[in-house]
Amino acid sequence: MARNYQVVSTDDHIIEPEGMFDGRLPSKFADRTPKLVHDDEGASWVYEGKSQQMSGLSTAAGQKIEEFSPKSKTFDQMRPGCYDPRERIKDMDADGVDAQVCFPTLPHIAGANFIELEDKEYALAVIRAYNDWLAEEWCGADPDRLIGAAILPLFDMSAAASEARRVAGIGIKAVSLPSHPHTIAGLKNYPDPSWAPLYDALSETGLPAEVHIASGKVDTSVLAKSAGSPAEVFVCLAPSSNMEFVATMLFSGVLRKWPKLKFISAESGIGWLPYFLERADYTHRKHQFWTGSRIDVTPSDLFHQSVYANFISDRAGVELRGMIGVDNIMLGTDYPHTDTSWPDTQRIIKEQLGDLPDEDRAKICALNAVRVFGLDHKPA
Amino acid sequence: MARNYQVVSTDDHIIEPEGMFDGRLPSKFADRTPKLVHDDEGASWVYEGKSQQMSGLSTAAGQKIEEFSPKSKTFDQMRPGCYDPRERIKDMDADGVDAQVCFPTLPHIAGANFIELEDKEYALAVIRAYNDWLAEEWCGADPDRLIGAAILPLFDMSAAASEARRVAGIGIKAVSLPSHPHTIAGLKNYPDPSWAPLYDALSETGLPAEVHIASGKVDTSVLAKSAGSPAEVFVCLAPSSNMEFVATMLFSGVLRKWPKLKFISAESGIGWLPYFLERADYTHRKHQFWTGSRIDVTPSDLFHQSVYANFISDRAGVELRGMIGVDNIMLGTDYPHTDTSWPDTQRIIKEQLGDLPDEDRAKICALNAVRVFGLDHKPA
Repeated sequence: MARNYQVVSTDDHIIEPEGMFDGRLPSKFADRTPKLVHDDEGASWVYEGKSQQMSGLSTAAGQKIEEFSPKSKTFDQMRPGCYDPRERIKDMDADGVDAQVCFPTLPHIAGANFIELEDKEYALAVIRAYNDWLAEEWCGADPDRLIGAAILPLFDMSAAASEARRVAGIGIKAVSLPSHPHTIAGLKNYPDPSWAPLYDALSETGLPAEVHIASGKVDTSVLAKSAGSPAEVFVCLAPSSNMEFVATMLFSGVLRKWPKLKFISAESGIGWLPYFLERADYTHRKHQFWTGSRIDVTPSDLFHQSVYANFISDRAGVELRGMIGVDNIMLGTDYPHTDTSWPDTQRIIKEQLGDLPDEDRAKICALNAVRVFGLDHKPA
Repeated sequence: MARNYQVVSTDDHIIEPEGMFDGRLPSKFADRTPKLVHDDEGASWVYEGKSQQMSGLSTAAGQKIEEFSPKSKTFDQMRPGCYDPRERIKDMDADGVDAQVCFPTLPHIAGANFIELEDKEYALAVIRAYNDWLAEEWCGADPDRLIGAAILPLFDMSAAASEARRVAGIGIKAVSLPSHPHTIAGLKNYPDPSWAPLYDALSETGLPAEVHIASGKVDTSVLAKSAGSPAEVFVCLAPSSNMEFVATMLFSGVLRKWPKLKFISAESGIGWLPYFLERADYTHRKHQFWTGSRIDVTPSDLFHQSVYANFISDRAGVELRGMIGVDNIMLGTDYPHTDTSWPDTQRIIKEQLGDLPDEDRAKICALNAVRVFGLDHKPA
């Protein structure tokens, strides 16, 4: 149903509710259905002999900054908007957000927890079950407003290509791919030819790939970034760590061979992009001969063709949006993580984008996402 | 002797000449003096059972970009300005550069090759010999124009503190510290209390620490940054990889406890700094409670107090210099590496800084370095 989109966020997160897999696995795997287990310490998902707790930092929407803590929560300590799509929409209404692109949490942002499962037949079944739930139950609550990023069985690129085609057929509008694929057991980095079948499928379906910071099996322990560093170092650096992914895509030749691919660098911020694109073009100009460059256009041309990035609060990037490309910038509200702009998104938009020409602000707040995700937009 | 400094570069490199250690080691180590060995493949330094070749990319000044190659060169294939301080000065004259801060190459940029030597008594002797040569032979050619960055025996912080005090006494004006200390065997990262004696010594002597990108025992193999990435990915990302070092210094509390320390982030570029400082302050504001912050001022305040960064070509940073701090920006010409601006530094200054107010341009081109390195400047 056509809608007048004014604010579209392309970086938000689902906390999966109890029972989401019930009845969704083939009968041979029914007794291996992942279960949510509650105790006084919080809630854990239990499957395949593993027990996964959720960081309290991932369910922080509505908390004061003084209350943030990595300690796991019980579901009744979270806002229901974390796990209930109808409550999510109420929270979006309170924040003036028309639509959100939502990432998985339980399988990890881009599915690494499921991709690495030993029994690949089971892994494929649980990934398909997840995507079915995402389409039917989460996005199903309001398909014009909740856009789920599906996970793919990347351990087998033919299966991943098939799953991408399948989810496109059930109304899914995005897939989630890892920022650091080579940190997932058995996977190679994006330039590897093994990815070709998936690049074909994404080009054919037009599904954009959301690539969230620190996804894959990156060590996201806030204390482990480098020995002895305070926790803030990881928090501060995590967004711009997507620089490595973006550089890899620009220089690999993939975007030259598959020009229809669309990548959204999610939660990466945008303020480093003016510097980065200038540096990438300088690198190409000066180093293309000895490196045996795989591209015959500038990296910034490929960025403008295929890559988008979103931000929460980033005045440096907004100032230099002309050096990024105003058609390549989106918003993210990061609900319900600690960095979320909820419930202050309108105030932040005013502070960050208040002095922009209306056309630029409309593109950044909604119209770029409308175009890339193929939303049915009705101008006011 | 007072000099009117108009262009000071704070990022350049020495290619150590044959015989530099001869007669400089204590007699007990005389037969273990490092030797330069020439063959058809280029030149190698041989010491302690190791043989070290130099990348041709480190001796590229004067080559066309089509000729750049990692293949090692013989000394007669390099510009003499690489290894001869008097020839270096001629090349600086041709480029309109008044002074250069020069990093070591043979011991690696911040000395990691010597720091990791097993025999620590020998390691200390060879480090002291290096610094003596640096002061007497390299800087000695013109102490107002060639500023050497001394290396320190960081395997023992008391010895490092003593060596810092000693080199300050023989006219050395800077030390070189690694961007990734914890990648050197036996060393901890900068927040570790083991560094206290050196911080005391640097505070007392006023010696600024130059921290060059990718220094330590970082895997700088251009092909190894992440599996399957093209070589340009490393080249493109190497400068901004100093972000980790800068974040570590800002959040660690070190700059709060030792406010007189001065760090120059060398070859890091500056265009990511507006984004980074904004992100650092946001991180501090929003995450200081759960992380147990070690600082009671904003990270950007500490940056302005103690950190400087240099660049070769970086229009994004120049545009937003007000968000960085025009007192914290310097130039680097990176002679004789592939990214060097030589012999076009004047043209690049005009292109990058031509439209700036004279005061800003003068600070960036020379006056900030004059202040931080304590050069004897005579206004025109």
